[in-house]
Amino acid sequence: MPSRYLSFRCSVPWLLLLLQALFLSRAFFAFPGADDIYFSSEFYPVFQDVNHMVIFGFGFFLMVLRRYGYSSTGFNFLLIVLGVQCSVLVDDLLAVLDIQYSGFGVESLARAVMSMTAVVISAGAVLGKANPVQLIVMSLVELIIFHGSRYINSTYLQVPEPLLLMHGYLFGAYFGLAVTSRFPEHPPGLDKHRSTPKSELFSVLGTVFVWVFWPSFNSILAETKQQAVLSTYLALAVSAVAAFMLSALTSKDGKFRMAHIHSAVLAGGVTLSYTAEIIQYPWIAMILGLLGSVISILGSHCLQRCFNPPLKLQDTSGVHFTFGLPAVLGAVATVVLQVVEKVIAEHQSDLSSLGYFIFLEVGAFCQTISTALITGLITGLILNIKLLKAVHVSKYFDDQFYWEFPHLSVGF
Amino acid sequence: MPSRYLSFRCSVPWLLLLLQALFLSRAFFAFPGADDIYFSSEFYPVFQDVNHMVIFGFGFFLMVLRRYGYSSTGFNFLLIVLGVQCSVLVDDLLAVLDIQYSGFGVESLARAVMSMTAVVISAGAVLGKANPVQLIVMSLVELIIFHGSRYINSTYLQVPEPLLLMHGYLFGAYFGLAVTSRFPEHPPGLDKHRSTPKSELFSVLGTVFVWVFWPSFNSILAETKQQAVLSTYLALAVSAVAAFMLSALTSKDGKFRMAHIHSAVLAGGVTLSYTAEIIQYPWIAMILGLLGSVISILGSHCLQRCFNPPLKLQDTSGVHFTFGLPAVLGAVATVVLQVVEKVIAEHQSDLSSLGYFIFLEVGAFCQTISTALITGLITGLILNIKLLKAVHVSKYFDDQFYWEFPHLSVGF
Amino acid sequence: MPSRYLSFRCSVPWLLLLLQALFLSRAFFAFPGADDIYFSSEFYPVFQDVNHMVIFGFGFFLMVLRRYGYSSTGFNFLLIVLGVQCSVLVDDLLAVLDIQYSGFGVESLARAVMSMTAVVISAGAVLGKANPVQLIVMSLVELIIFHGSRYINSTYLQVPEPLLLMHGYLFGAYFGLAVTSRFPEHPPGLDKHRSTPKSELFSVLGTVFVWVFWPSFNSILAETKQQAVLSTYLALAVSAVAAFMLSALTSKDGKFRMAHIHSAVLAGGVTLSYTAEIIQYPWIAMILGLLGSVISILGSHCLQRCFNPPLKLQDTSGVHFTFGLPAVLGAVATVVLQVVEKVIAEHQSDLSSLGYFIFLEVGAFCQTISTALITGLITGLILNIKLLKAVHVSKYFDDQFYWEFPHLSVGF
Repeated sequence: MPSRYLSFRCSVPWLLLLLQALFLSRAFFAFPGADDIYFSSEFYPVFQDVNHMVIFGFGFFLMVLRRYGYSSTGFNFLLIVLGVQCSVLVDDLLAVLDIQYSGFGVESLARAVMSMTAVVISAGAVLGKANPVQLIVMSLVELIIFHGSRYINSTYLQVPEPLLLMHGYLFGAYFGLAVTSRFPEHPPGLDKHRSTPKSELFSVLGTVFVWVFWPSFNSILAETKQQAVLSTYLALAVSAVAAFMLSALTSKDGKFRMAHIHSAVLAGGVTLSYTAEIIQYPWIAMILGLLGSVISILGSHCLQRCFNPPLKLQDTSGVHFTFGLPAVLGAVATVVLQVVEKVIAEHQSDLSSLGYFIFLEVGAFCQTISTALITGLITGLILNIKLLKAVHVSKYFDDQFYWEFPHLSVGF
Repeated sequence: MPSRYLSFRCSVPWLLLLLQALFLSRAFFAFPGADDIYFSSEFYPVFQDVNHMVIFGFGFFLMVLRRYGYSSTGFNFLLIVLGVQCSVLVDDLLAVLDIQYSGFGVESLARAVMSMTAVVISAGAVLGKANPVQLIVMSLVELIIFHGSRYINSTYLQVPEPLLLMHGYLFGAYFGLAVTSRFPEHPPGLDKHRSTPKSELFSVLGTVFVWVFWPSFNSILAETKQQAVLSTYLALAVSAVAAFMLSALTSKDGKFRMAHIHSAVLAGGVTLSYTAEIIQYPWIAMILGLLGSVISILGSHCLQRCFNPPLKLQDTSGVHFTFGLPAVLGAVATVVLQVVEKVIAEHQSDLSSLGYFIFLEVGAFCQTISTALITGLITGLILNIKLLKAVHVSKYFDDQFYWEFPHLSVGF
Repeated sequence: MPSRYLSFRCSVPWLLLLLQALFLSRAFFAFPGADDIYFSSEFYPVFQDVNHMVIFGFGFFLMVLRRYGYSSTGFNFLLIVLGVQCSVLVDDLLAVLDIQYSGFGVESLARAVMSMTAVVISAGAVLGKANPVQLIVMSLVELIIFHGSRYINSTYLQVPEPLLLMHGYLFGAYFGLAVTSRFPEHPPGLDKHRSTPKSELFSVLGTVFVWVFWPSFNSILAETKQQAVLSTYLALAVSAVAAFMLSALTSKDGKFRMAHIHSAVLAGGVTLSYTAEIIQYPWIAMILGLLGSVISILGSHCLQRCFNPPLKLQDTSGVHFTFGLPAVLGAVATVVLQVVEKVIAEHQSDLSSLGYFIFLEVGAFCQTISTALITGLITGLILNIKLLKAVHVSKYFDDQFYWEFPHLSVGF
């Protein structure tokens, strides 16, 4: 058995080398230079915010497990630097096929970083269960499928450009759930997937970063940036208040639970991702933030008790109720809001055009979620073939399996 | 007794629900949309800096107590998301009363976040002693009174617009001191209000964030931003050097003490808050930074030995010498500097106009500080009525009283 | 012996006072005001990024040693606030001598912060061995010599303005190595220079910050900012992937080693520092990033086994392979790239002009490195004279020697 694990570890560097050689050779042949693209120096700080949010924020947000701190940040970082290159490459390939073209600049880098959110969320679902080889394969497959799904949304379902990347939460969460359902369950006695006060504090640090930078994320591609910033900020504020409220209501003795705060605080941002730009009145944003928080905390109770056990789902960092459910709510809200707006604005009963519009919106949503689930299941099956040498359940959630610890072997 | 604590906890979510419903209904009726307000994308990064400083920086800056890490960041975060909404609401009410009008945009959000500094500082004074209900009541009362105090300053005492919010340090520190004087003392034997090397490191992290973002805070509303940035930066640098110098001088064996560094490093920023924009020569900023640091460290010695014990004051995180005294120094400096400038510029002996000017400046300062002290005392009395169920002194400084710890009960 | 150490400690505050008085008096006599210099508000966010990277990022990046967390961040912070003032002063003196003039504004502050990188890197080489007096003397001497070296580069070797500061990595690393070679070795049994999982996590935090802000550092003075940002980002991404790859390849059992990730992740940024702006094709940046990572990890193996022991070098935080070797690679790359470009562009065989160009480039490089080594050796000798009271080897790497710990004496 040791040799088997040894061999998986030894395959990591070669896989990385292969991928990096691929990216390099592709860049050699066809990467456009950047000298002639307009560079808005107002865009750069927002790009940095998004970068920081994805690399630092999510990296530390995931650092909940008590013996998995190195891997949480380390692998998150590795997946992002690989995925950004892969994403730029796929964009470039699509440009060669003349399907879409958008030059290569800081903006395309921003798109690449944003599309990594889906991968980061999926990686959160299998946190501690997948080995690096599985994670890398999963993230590359997911990136390519997500590109495809966005292409379908853009071409056939008329989803506007800035919203394409906002499907990342939805896609990432359900893809991750489908993948994690194919992994063997860890025994209930294992306590390595618990958190300690110290690991929670690092996770709080990451959560606060994600919270602060979320308005930048939602507004970076928006046309009316101020509207997007304000709506997102208000929704985040309300969802944070609601997180404390519901956490005290649902837990024993009225105490707060940090895990609730983590997920519900961010729910407002996810819920607003589709609608940040089109919301005219702050109270709508606030109500959506509130609903996002409610659905996230109630969802966490229902899912963990009623839904996950029969399906044998083990969603390590709770991506289903942190990102999945609020994103579904956001998708529903965007349809409702736009239909209401159309009805009010036009005073017409042209039901066929309205129906066509609803068909398109719901279609994009269903296409994204079903693609995510189906390809996620297939990816999960592929990841558990013998070739990729899945980790034994007794080795789940353990840094020491992947990292050399300097001297002593105490965990986090 | 347990049932009494239980009941206080159960009142938190309902209080939050009530407040949130209030904010929401107010927003429903009268919140202006943001679509028609000019949005400067140069303003946004500075807004993000201020946001980061208040939410993240102060949240971790306060994380000194060894068993109070969750509450320090968590409650700071809760107070800010509540307070920002409340502050926007109060602004909006004042607009309806036609007293002042400033639209709703990122700038009004920035003002709301900035006015939260006062609340955060006051919360630092009662850190570990007040329960969440008390904190929420305190912060809402304080916000409304601070709005009122600013209104008086602006209307009757001709304080210019950008300086109104700078009184936040002064107001917050003395309001907090007055409130904390009404709380029962904790027994001297209790060691839970000490720090550990680990909690200090998190606090250093927060301090560095506050330090780096301070020039943004002082320049965000300034007209000559470059002047404000440069003066603040130099003052902060000098006060950091002086902090190390004085810490080694005042402590046994010439060792540095982290608590000194924490407070004195920031003193330069507080001292410059009124004068950052009007200082013409860098050396004035540097001397003010030095004096701020001196007053902060000497103040910490004198206050903790001579002033606090007879008054039975227990200023947990030292807001008196970190924010209070440097702000007083800054207020004195602004009068002196402007008088000198006027005298030099005009070569006149029009003592009456000069006297009127000094009267206005000193008046604004005295009005702020006396309002803070009086209303703070009253608030402190209100907070300790039976209805709000004050925490017993034996439960002070303890995360476990408010938070559900995952599994083991070791503190930070 | 205690009295000797005591006396060294007591000299710290007086040294700081002396320096601060010097800076203040200089500022009093000749510091220009800033009111009339153009302030680009687009520049400010990038300035904040660089500030954050140097103060926060490097401060926590160095926090690897398990009993040296306070000193790592604290002294880094102290050196920067002192050094920035000193650097502004030296610039100002040069302006008075009419050698160069550049006003005093946020940009000159940015230059001052950037030139501190050299000092921070050198301080990393003697981390845990030098006492604060030695660190302060070293940083001031180094700053002045680095100014001189830049002046020679600029005047006699025609190095363009934006590249002058990029020699900081090279200068800092070799100056630091030369200084550390003059310090007595610590006994091999001492385990205080090891890291713990917790200290490593703080260090990861700092590393991620440095990584994210590096594109800002490389582009802040560049003329084609977009080019610089994109090249640096891609190089950093590739070097991060290569860091994971090589770490798994070179360590036992194919496990990752955090120390490798730390240094190699940043190698791409160092390598690109000279060439970020002039690289036309992304694949060149990517290859440089890859080579930087390779040279950093292989260098760490070779240096620590073959090079350091005979020379009795103890490079605590590995600045030689983290900053020194990648900077050498970058310097070589800039010559090669520019020669290739010139040859392609001009189709000429004007060997003499090409030779002159190569002479200038190689000259600047050799001048920087030899100045660093020679003055570093001299500084190292000066630092170890009796007057400065070097720390005894048994007190190396120990926070308790410099800091008052609140109550208990457990290390980090």
